[in-house]
Amino acid sequence: MMGRLTVLGTGPGNPAQTTPQAEAAIAAGEWFFGYGPYLDRLSLRPDQQRIASDNREEIDRAKAALDAAVKGKAVCVVSGGDPGVFAMAAAICEAIEHGPPSWRNLDIAIVPGVTAMLAVAARAGAPLGHDFCAISLSDNLKPWPVIEQRLRAVSAAGLVIALYNPISKSRPWQLPAAFAILRETLPWTTPVIFGRAIGRPDEHFVVVPLSEADRQHADMATCVIIGSAETRIVERPGRDPLVYSPRSTGG
Amino acid sequence: MMGRLTVLGTGPGNPAQTTPQAEAAIAAGEWFFGYGPYLDRLSLRPDQQRIASDNREEIDRAKAALDAAVKGKAVCVVSGGDPGVFAMAAAICEAIEHGPPSWRNLDIAIVPGVTAMLAVAARAGAPLGHDFCAISLSDNLKPWPVIEQRLRAVSAAGLVIALYNPISKSRPWQLPAAFAILRETLPWTTPVIFGRAIGRPDEHFVVVPLSEADRQHADMATCVIIGSAETRIVERPGRDPLVYSPRSTGG
Repeated sequence: MMGRLTVLGTGPGNPAQTTPQAEAAIAAGEWFFGYGPYLDRLSLRPDQQRIASDNREEIDRAKAALDAAVKGKAVCVVSGGDPGVFAMAAAICEAIEHGPPSWRNLDIAIVPGVTAMLAVAARAGAPLGHDFCAISLSDNLKPWPVIEQRLRAVSAAGLVIALYNPISKSRPWQLPAAFAILRETLPWTTPVIFGRAIGRPDEHFVVVPLSEADRQHADMATCVIIGSAETRIVERPGRDPLVYSPRSTGG
Repeated sequence: MMGRLTVLGTGPGNPAQTTPQAEAAIAAGEWFFGYGPYLDRLSLRPDQQRIASDNREEIDRAKAALDAAVKGKAVCVVSGGDPGVFAMAAAICEAIEHGPPSWRNLDIAIVPGVTAMLAVAARAGAPLGHDFCAISLSDNLKPWPVIEQRLRAVSAAGLVIALYNPISKSRPWQLPAAFAILRETLPWTTPVIFGRAIGRPDEHFVVVPLSEADRQHADMATCVIIGSAETRIVERPGRDPLVYSPRSTGG
């Protein structure tokens, strides 16, 4: 019997931001593959099987999940945020392309979720209110010069930038290097937003000018949003300021 | 009595993709401002007030909503998708910046949602699996040469592109012009995905090579995703192909 495989995103971490569609997929799943901390967010039943793996083992996890689905299991592959943004959906597609023909016969469903930059942006105001991009700062899977060139291109073109995977124990220098590059093309007053675990007890949220942007505000779960030259800060008495990018641009 | 204002996103249209957080905000709201078709998706109670306006009146709608909140109402401003992506959150911030001081004292909350490109990407596979950008093709609020320059910059830099607001009755030529620009920098075999109303009865979804990309597949509610040179198509017997962008890049 051929099983099915669902790749789902739980959203940024606040349970109220997980969609009913994702909850239904979880309820229908038998075997759950994912990074341990993401699986920890689920309340699985005793009959549901949990197969946790390390964050850096995406392709091996994808292959194991596809193998279980071919054997007839109802498999869920769990990502935080949205599964299509620097997460498991691409790894599943990649494994299918290079795997046995049986994997192409599987019933594959991908359930979208609220990705981290949207939650961080909502906490800040509307920094993604005009054209923007999302760039992973991890050079595990692409050469650093490609990342440098992309940062220069998008900042010069006036896009707001959301950085995913900004830093880790094995990648300590890339985030400061990215800020140094951006200080060449953007005003030093450009707002930089650091957000992690928005809406959770361990939330960290801070806004600083690009001149003061520093890796101390980030860990591997942080999303960093760097404004464009047009991004503005609206001060409010007794409240957090609103950071937003106007819908219009003069060019 | 000072009211509060919540800007919320209902997600891409499938009710199972609206978050519990957005549903709770709707349940707590008294006055609802938004584009008519988005308000039509809500099941409001008789005691909840509906104030619909045209799609092009964002700033007037924002001002009316802020005014109602200052008068003590619990106001919801409703966007489809995510309110921070080419939607009402930026218009609210902009109105506050240029409005009376009382608007800065309001309790403002922004509730994120699943934005259209994530739902279209999930339907296709994982086309946003590596670095990507979101660009509005509307030249109502920015000059067309800025859009042209951004399309050239991001396609040359290897980012996947999600186009919002691709076409409307008053903007018929911009989408074909965008495809013509992208054919200068991208292989003509690059996959182009057109998706609207994903998961709804009026869903339209099609994948064509850039050489055949044409405005006939799009309307104002369509999100168009153009791959990078590395985006791949995995054929599957008897099933839709998977379109994905590999996590790794050779540079």
